[in-house]
Amino acid sequence: MGTVPTLYDGSSERRAPADQATVRRTNLGLVLRHLRDSGPRSRARIAQETGLNKATVSSLVAELAERRLVSTGDVDRAGSVGRPGLTVHLDGACVCGIGVELNVDYAAVLVLDLRGAVLHEQRRALDIPALGAERTLDAVAALVTDAVAVAAAAGARPAGLTVAVAGLVRSVDGVVTLAPNIGWRDVAVLDGLRARLGVDFPIRVENDANLSAIAEWAMGSEAGTPDLVYLTGEVGVGGGVVVAGRLLRGAGGLSGEVGHTSLGDPDRVCGCGRRGCWETVVGLAALLRGAADPGDPVHDPGRDLETRLAEVARRAEDGDARTLAALEQVGTSLGTGAAVLINVFNPRVVLLGGYFAVLGRFLMAPLLAELETRVLAPGMAGARVVLSTLGFTAAVRGGAHVALESVLDDPTLVPVAALAPAGAP
Amino acid sequence: MGTVPTLYDGSSERRAPADQATVRRTNLGLVLRHLRDSGPRSRARIAQETGLNKATVSSLVAELAERRLVSTGDVDRAGSVGRPGLTVHLDGACVCGIGVELNVDYAAVLVLDLRGAVLHEQRRALDIPALGAERTLDAVAALVTDAVAVAAAAGARPAGLTVAVAGLVRSVDGVVTLAPNIGWRDVAVLDGLRARLGVDFPIRVENDANLSAIAEWAMGSEAGTPDLVYLTGEVGVGGGVVVAGRLLRGAGGLSGEVGHTSLGDPDRVCGCGRRGCWETVVGLAALLRGAADPGDPVHDPGRDLETRLAEVARRAEDGDARTLAALEQVGTSLGTGAAVLINVFNPRVVLLGGYFAVLGRFLMAPLLAELETRVLAPGMAGARVVLSTLGFTAAVRGGAHVALESVLDDPTLVPVAALAPAGAP
Repeated sequence: MGTVPTLYDGSSERRAPADQATVRRTNLGLVLRHLRDSGPRSRARIAQETGLNKATVSSLVAELAERRLVSTGDVDRAGSVGRPGLTVHLDGACVCGIGVELNVDYAAVLVLDLRGAVLHEQRRALDIPALGAERTLDAVAALVTDAVAVAAAAGARPAGLTVAVAGLVRSVDGVVTLAPNIGWRDVAVLDGLRARLGVDFPIRVENDANLSAIAEWAMGSEAGTPDLVYLTGEVGVGGGVVVAGRLLRGAGGLSGEVGHTSLGDPDRVCGCGRRGCWETVVGLAALLRGAADPGDPVHDPGRDLETRLAEVARRAEDGDARTLAALEQVGTSLGTGAAVLINVFNPRVVLLGGYFAVLGRFLMAPLLAELETRVLAPGMAGARVVLSTLGFTAAVRGGAHVALESVLDDPTLVPVAALAPAGAP
Repeated sequence: MGTVPTLYDGSSERRAPADQATVRRTNLGLVLRHLRDSGPRSRARIAQETGLNKATVSSLVAELAERRLVSTGDVDRAGSVGRPGLTVHLDGACVCGIGVELNVDYAAVLVLDLRGAVLHEQRRALDIPALGAERTLDAVAALVTDAVAVAAAAGARPAGLTVAVAGLVRSVDGVVTLAPNIGWRDVAVLDGLRARLGVDFPIRVENDANLSAIAEWAMGSEAGTPDLVYLTGEVGVGGGVVVAGRLLRGAGGLSGEVGHTSLGDPDRVCGCGRRGCWETVVGLAALLRGAADPGDPVHDPGRDLETRLAEVARRAEDGDARTLAALEQVGTSLGTGAAVLINVFNPRVVLLGGYFAVLGRFLMAPLLAELETRVLAPGMAGARVVLSTLGFTAAVRGGAHVALESVLDDPTLVPVAALAPAGAP
């Protein structure tokens, strides 16, 4: 699959002149990534495919095995070719990445091991705007503590934690500068969680749509597509964009705020205080407002969102006129904004996430009709619109994936020999 | 200044395994670029700064001198430091790049030598929609032939020609698939010019806004800014975007079509046949329509555009209410769309080109007021709005620059010894 989109600025990619230790770390990472992306294979084949010499590969594999990141054995897996011999395969069950998402009415956590297997997954309905920042961070800390415990029980030590927030995030110090739909301004999420968790693994904070785009790029149905646009369908609507195989971050990591572009109802007030934002016509609130009166159970934030969306889908399938009209309206408005993104980015794929994916079968026809009208280039410039298969887990998967990338960049972060206690300070 | 944004897809960047000839070409280019970007210096200093050994640098400089791309001499130029000795400096007067632009009511040509000096510049008022493709290409071929002759008289041989077109361009075969404001669809510009010119240098066709963005990145007042958005202010409005130091091209080179996003007057028909495009409220026609009645001389396409814009500026300075209202309207609408681009791209700089730059002093206040209202991130996410200093020459400069890049990538494209006849087949 090649490299994943870069999460951080180009500036962080610059490296010091390579000394021996750096070269060793780079080569350890090269072998580990090759095994992850290409599957089990012999040392000889790794040497041939990476251009490293055989003695070096043997030494690297030995060190990776000491760090329990690879195992060797006579495993004859599918896809393995070449002469028989001891096959090296990714182990990586002893290391994991944790992704957390804070959204308007829930917090979620997901733990992936190095092989991409889900070790743990949990979602909790939370009225975050009402809870406020401190109590929300308490709840998130509890979710993470549970996740670390589950991972530890499975023998996996966290390589890092990435927190996805639906808002503007200053990555450098993990401060959420503005999250309109949860009413946060300048909340020090990174420091707050560090103080609560007291863990030794790195914590990062990122925009949820950016992490979702990374998840799609790394493990979604369109994985590896060099130019893709991901849209979060939640209370808020954000965009994560991969340009030529790299995540678009902008000068300060604040790119992708498509939900607050002036493509909505000019008279309707948005969560951010402005009028006319695109979110006001395509966000979850716009759909539910169109589909049902305020007292209707689909509005009840105490009920699980999937259940409420299933109810909307049931009504649409039953031919309920109001529900169908609301879905058509959202689909058309989604097309208006998606057309802007296609005109501007010329992506291969536009991925619809969150509730857009859940109800996508009802949104797609009006959306495509609108795109047909609005995109300048014939044939939509070759863009396809695809429903995400990662559902509401895209952001947490992207977060867990980013946390694991540090191990692939530098496998020496995982200690040798006896397993250190998971999550210990 | 580092590398310029990549014009073509990543796919073209992949190189075959390095053989000796490739290594030699790469190192020739490295030395040449270093001299262009850092100024005259001694061989010893070049060796020190590039990491090449001294003997290699001497051999490379000798070859570059044979190709007349560098000269050596005891030139004590400003900026040259270090111990005295023979200084190597970029010569490059014997090679040039040609940029041509086709826009709605003019064609322009500009020739740059390798040092960035303008050897020739010409602009011709042309009613391209009325002329049609064949006669337009005849006129362009005549402009290029004149330019090649002027360059030859100065001893400069063209390294290439890049044609900027305000429309959708399929770079791979130089076909303009759609140029709404000149009424072109599937016009084979590359083949048409090749047949007319019969030259041996490479010809490329590109979107005008993309080339303008490259020009700004390479030689504008904000040169080297890694995240910038350029807006063409002409009859049509297009965008060229540099993301993390690379030109945004999208999956098929069709990115940046901001003029046809639905941010304009929903009732007004655009040159592309749609209603409500942003161009309908910020394009040159919208300004002139607002500022003056149809019979007014500022509308006369037979008059030079600079003269007409100077007249608009004069009226604004005289306090003409209608002119000022039209400028305020355009400034506000420009802000609405620029806000979308800032929300989506989080650039450091938005550069206003073409007529936006000429009349920028009247547009800036309403534009900034609108941005203040519309951009989600506090302080406009750090973005500045800047008037281009390249005026209407940005696209042709970008084109000439791209043509020269091939020489910097591979100096062996310039023949050794006796100068080959310029532009000969």
